[in-house]
Amino acid sequence: MRATLLYAAGDIRVETVPDPKIIDPTDALVRVTHSCICGSDLWPYKSAAATESGNRIGHEFIGVIEEVGSEVTGLKPGQRAIAPFVYSDGTCANCAHGINTSCTNGGFWGATQPNGHLVDGGQGQYVRVPLATGTLVPIPDGTAESLAPALLTLSDVMGTGHHAALGARVTPGCTTAVVGDGAVGLCGVLAAKRLGAERVILLGSNPARWAVAQRFGATDQVTTRGAQAAGEAVRELTNGLGADAVLECVGTREAFDTAVAVARPGGAVGYVGVPQQLDNGYAPLPIRQLFSRNVAIGGGVAPVRAYLPVLLADVLSGKLDPSPVFDLELPLEQAADGYRAMNDRTAIKVLLRS
Amino acid sequence: MRATLLYAAGDIRVETVPDPKIIDPTDALVRVTHSCICGSDLWPYKSAAATESGNRIGHEFIGVIEEVGSEVTGLKPGQRAIAPFVYSDGTCANCAHGINTSCTNGGFWGATQPNGHLVDGGQGQYVRVPLATGTLVPIPDGTAESLAPALLTLSDVMGTGHHAALGARVTPGCTTAVVGDGAVGLCGVLAAKRLGAERVILLGSNPARWAVAQRFGATDQVTTRGAQAAGEAVRELTNGLGADAVLECVGTREAFDTAVAVARPGGAVGYVGVPQQLDNGYAPLPIRQLFSRNVAIGGGVAPVRAYLPVLLADVLSGKLDPSPVFDLELPLEQAADGYRAMNDRTAIKVLLRS
Repeated sequence: MRATLLYAAGDIRVETVPDPKIIDPTDALVRVTHSCICGSDLWPYKSAAATESGNRIGHEFIGVIEEVGSEVTGLKPGQRAIAPFVYSDGTCANCAHGINTSCTNGGFWGATQPNGHLVDGGQGQYVRVPLATGTLVPIPDGTAESLAPALLTLSDVMGTGHHAALGARVTPGCTTAVVGDGAVGLCGVLAAKRLGAERVILLGSNPARWAVAQRFGATDQVTTRGAQAAGEAVRELTNGLGADAVLECVGTREAFDTAVAVARPGGAVGYVGVPQQLDNGYAPLPIRQLFSRNVAIGGGVAPVRAYLPVLLADVLSGKLDPSPVFDLELPLEQAADGYRAMNDRTAIKVLLRS
Repeated sequence: MRATLLYAAGDIRVETVPDPKIIDPTDALVRVTHSCICGSDLWPYKSAAATESGNRIGHEFIGVIEEVGSEVTGLKPGQRAIAPFVYSDGTCANCAHGINTSCTNGGFWGATQPNGHLVDGGQGQYVRVPLATGTLVPIPDGTAESLAPALLTLSDVMGTGHHAALGARVTPGCTTAVVGDGAVGLCGVLAAKRLGAERVILLGSNPARWAVAQRFGATDQVTTRGAQAAGEAVRELTNGLGADAVLECVGTREAFDTAVAVARPGGAVGYVGVPQQLDNGYAPLPIRQLFSRNVAIGGGVAPVRAYLPVLLADVLSGKLDPSPVFDLELPLEQAADGYRAMNDRTAIKVLLRS
């Protein structure tokens, strides 16, 4: 089959790799119909060291179940399904708490399982899905093909925006600020509105992204850069108070500082951008501000599997449509062009068709 | 009147200072009957630079209202009252959100008001209380004098333990860990039990403090030091998972790292110890762990004024008795001995009688 590999920073290739097969009785084999490129794929794309054989990449996909192992339940060949960006058994104590990303038996696409077998990356023609019963969420038969892009967002970006909104404790009627106008930030706007936020202030300056944010319900835009100036701008919009709930959707120190600066006393920051600029796992946080103003921090790597049933229901009923985050669609063979477009910020998010 | 002053690290004196008088019509004058020494008083006690004239200190007191300004409502001379450790108007937007510590007109005991007038410290014979209507909580007439120590804890330490428990999202039936066996940590144990925690694991090794913790409902003790070892010890007690809710009641980086290490994926840390070892307001936090395990952070400087009504009701009804945190009672004149005892950890918390 054909699959996307990252060979070095800026070096994405689509190549022929071995066809995956069922290995464990809990596996399923999925033929990928739609995958996409994530903001978090850009971090290795920008910085990966050169490798001889390349590494599989991609963790967002939907497709058709081709085959299931003998212990798989609730799924059958021919069904379409959504794969969250982490596979998980759905039964361990962490999954029971809704933190499927900490599943004691789970793992990431494109990485090697404890049994030594590679799990395919999501940007390819086929994926062997471990722990399929816990991982895959079937799409009801008869669902319109036109919903595919919206359904694909539930594999990561929309669930991640939702996680940011929950971490930021968005409540009906509240004022929300969203730091970052990437696809996650835009889905954060949508998630905040879905949870009842009255005002949603987007911190970002790109006109195309602001247009999508407005479709998603953003009410105000702050284009100022820098934590202090952003804090002043948001306070000016909020009677001097700051935002009740702040979604940090970038992952840099600057973005985190900005998120803290725009939160009101007693507010909360939900962060979902993969933290960058770490020093042995640590980063300096503005603790004096957090402490003195009682700003809480929530979020982390989004357990989107836990959110899939409720968000899927909203997509199917037409209440939720995150698909406008995709502004470029390419065949899988042109994945490298997709990475380039996202890295150059000429595309918000790229959908790949297998 | 007599009042406590800090002249330099380790140099506490009780001296005669000017008698306070009503200045603003919103002031009240309180004759302090009971005050106490806080763990947070020990930070300046350990490190303050020498001053010529000393600085007032102390922020926890109860007493008798002697006089009220013309605009004070709901309070009258002769009433006993509890003062939270920050004064606040009770009416601004931050107070309305329950974050009285961020009151736009409030401030700290022992500091200078924007109008240029000193606000007395809490460790003295009298205190001029600004914004008395919003600040003071009257103790019902007829309340037994023997409840004074328990009522005094509501000015800070018990409310702060409660804030840690809320920040850590303690829920009925959950497993809580408390980092630190100082008076705040012990009140954190009590607060967690009050909110329904089933197991409360105290991280601390002092036998006298462990005895109080057990009275307060602690079920397990971990004496191991260091974040990694503590994490292993708590996971061993919790089927490999970690604690649902963790109260960080110290304020050092080591304590914070320990709190994060003992939390389960999806758990929360409530921190209330005044953060030490800051670099321009920043401290390194273990973001990789927080992110990858979805551990939330809540807490900060405790808005105890907001908690006073509910905690006071529980003290008055006999449901809540934090008074065992006081294990040494001294006359105000011996405040220096009290500081020494707390700094040497021969006393948990010192009550001063004026």
